[in-house]
Amino acid sequence: MKDERLPNDCYFHVPRFRIAPLPRPQLRRDPIIDRPVIISTDRLGRPQELVTSSELPRPTVCPFCAGNERLTTEPTYVDPQQGPWRVRVVGNTFPAVRGASDPLPETAGLFHSVAAAGIHEVVIACPQHETSLSRLPADHLADFLRALCARMSSLLRDRPELYPLIFNNHKAAAGASMAHAHAQLLALAVVPELVQRELDSASRHRKLKDACIFCDMIEHEQRDGARLVLQSPRFIVLAPFASRFPCELWLLPRHHACHFDKLSGIELTELGEVFHTVLNKLDRGLLDPPYNFVIHTAPRSAPEADAFHWHIEFLPRLTGIAGFEFGTGIHINPVPPEQAAEYLRGIRV
Amino acid sequence: MKDERLPNDCYFHVPRFRIAPLPRPQLRRDPIIDRPVIISTDRLGRPQELVTSSELPRPTVCPFCAGNERLTTEPTYVDPQQGPWRVRVVGNTFPAVRGASDPLPETAGLFHSVAAAGIHEVVIACPQHETSLSRLPADHLADFLRALCARMSSLLRDRPELYPLIFNNHKAAAGASMAHAHAQLLALAVVPELVQRELDSASRHRKLKDACIFCDMIEHEQRDGARLVLQSPRFIVLAPFASRFPCELWLLPRHHACHFDKLSGIELTELGEVFHTVLNKLDRGLLDPPYNFVIHTAPRSAPEADAFHWHIEFLPRLTGIAGFEFGTGIHINPVPPEQAAEYLRGIRV
Repeated sequence: MKDERLPNDCYFHVPRFRIAPLPRPQLRRDPIIDRPVIISTDRLGRPQELVTSSELPRPTVCPFCAGNERLTTEPTYVDPQQGPWRVRVVGNTFPAVRGASDPLPETAGLFHSVAAAGIHEVVIACPQHETSLSRLPADHLADFLRALCARMSSLLRDRPELYPLIFNNHKAAAGASMAHAHAQLLALAVVPELVQRELDSASRHRKLKDACIFCDMIEHEQRDGARLVLQSPRFIVLAPFASRFPCELWLLPRHHACHFDKLSGIELTELGEVFHTVLNKLDRGLLDPPYNFVIHTAPRSAPEADAFHWHIEFLPRLTGIAGFEFGTGIHINPVPPEQAAEYLRGIRV
Repeated sequence: MKDERLPNDCYFHVPRFRIAPLPRPQLRRDPIIDRPVIISTDRLGRPQELVTSSELPRPTVCPFCAGNERLTTEPTYVDPQQGPWRVRVVGNTFPAVRGASDPLPETAGLFHSVAAAGIHEVVIACPQHETSLSRLPADHLADFLRALCARMSSLLRDRPELYPLIFNNHKAAAGASMAHAHAQLLALAVVPELVQRELDSASRHRKLKDACIFCDMIEHEQRDGARLVLQSPRFIVLAPFASRFPCELWLLPRHHACHFDKLSGIELTELGEVFHTVLNKLDRGLLDPPYNFVIHTAPRSAPEADAFHWHIEFLPRLTGIAGFEFGTGIHINPVPPEQAAEYLRGIRV
């Protein structure tokens, strides 16, 4: 939805800084280190652009609430198809990527850019104005996760060349611009570097050891126990050894599986329960912190895709990201993951 | 200084989450992608640990102000040595790194960690309680930059194996925990990945083209003009082609120079003026935004060090860092750098 309180002119931060919209978003590469960045004027005009405010404005009309469906685009997925919906997927009104891929990059000397092609959707988690996923019951979260899988599957059937990143921003301090609980599905024309590095490492490890590096890590963590937070028959949650954030948690399937969207119904039910427990441990243990979660799944068309092991990373945002992190790429975390795991194991939900 | 309002127990975020201090900070490597992270319980207990508050508390007694020198460690640098000081460098009371390097990593299966060795200092920019560098006159900023150079030089004479990162966090939203204007010098036992990638690229380009990639970029930007913000006889300021942040700016010497700390007196005077102009353009153009700056200099002991071109990156923090960025490593920037440059060129200071 367009926020009608905003003028039609695009501006950034101060009214005299008017931005001329680009015809389409661009994926540019840094000429020195090849680091990609998405330049997307479409993102301007979101209800909340300033990280400095810690509270999200309560919209007079929330376009994600039941009854206001006219304020969004036609849904690409609805659960269930008949009767009142529980989960609903729509286009993002302020997409970071859109459209089809360019055949060739635009080049000027050292500078290269291509269209930031792809699809950017919003997965509305519930019909009522609930601002935290942690307050939805486990079976509702299973429906939410089922919607993520179904929409990812369907999108990859149409455009297997895209890489689908699912992510969630909880609260303004974690980058959220809408308070109503939702996740985002952003399918990109490039495999993100972090996923590519995981895939490369998994492929290398398989060649060398004939084993999955994630499975080996899980086995070590189960034996050691210090960073284990919880286990269910099919899933494991742990505080990763090199956690970037205090109380960072990874959720992984215990048995090797590369594609998130191939979860069965029975797995989704169990995952809904584990997901509910993780969110409520963070919520109760850290007083409803801002957080992000991201889902890493195998790139569909990569030849080594089956070496990958999908997982969800939960990233609580209670410490700032400062100059050091942006200057080095190295995070400073004041909380040892072993102590985070011990504390979170003790939080009853 | 220790903030005496805090209990002696270390805790994180909630009083019942008590943290046992580690004997020394650790540099851990992610077992999958080898991403380093610093785990440092010393960082707990800083006056402000929560990114969600946008205002820094005004301390009852500011340890950085003239008259309160007893609240800091013995200075490692004072400008000038006699009379009232203008710039003063002291140890960080909450260091992210400290001590000497380990001979060998601690290893358990896939998990490796070493002592996070190094030095972490605070460069206090002025004796009065000034909260913004932009309000210091150009000649005072030249003294501040001289202090950064002098302290970096002296540190590298003692420990040439360290990589010295200088960075600054302006305002809580950019990670600051102290309001009094200051920068930090964090010398690490590893070359940060972002610097290593710049160095690798510069070495490769020099081999292929017998030229500096930064110099080639500068030449292109001077010819093109669209991303140029200002030039002085010796320095250039531009909005980089693949800016991660709206109004990101890079300041570079126009003529090839690899080591920041080898600036001459006359160069420092001119840099003080350019630095003053950049900070005041950001301050006036974007209403005193939160920002970071970082200085990238050549790693002292690298064989290819002279292929490097030192520079300062200014990173305004007006958009949030959300799940997408942490899941992919790709920033989304809603403001095209060409429009940022045009806007900032027009801001009179």
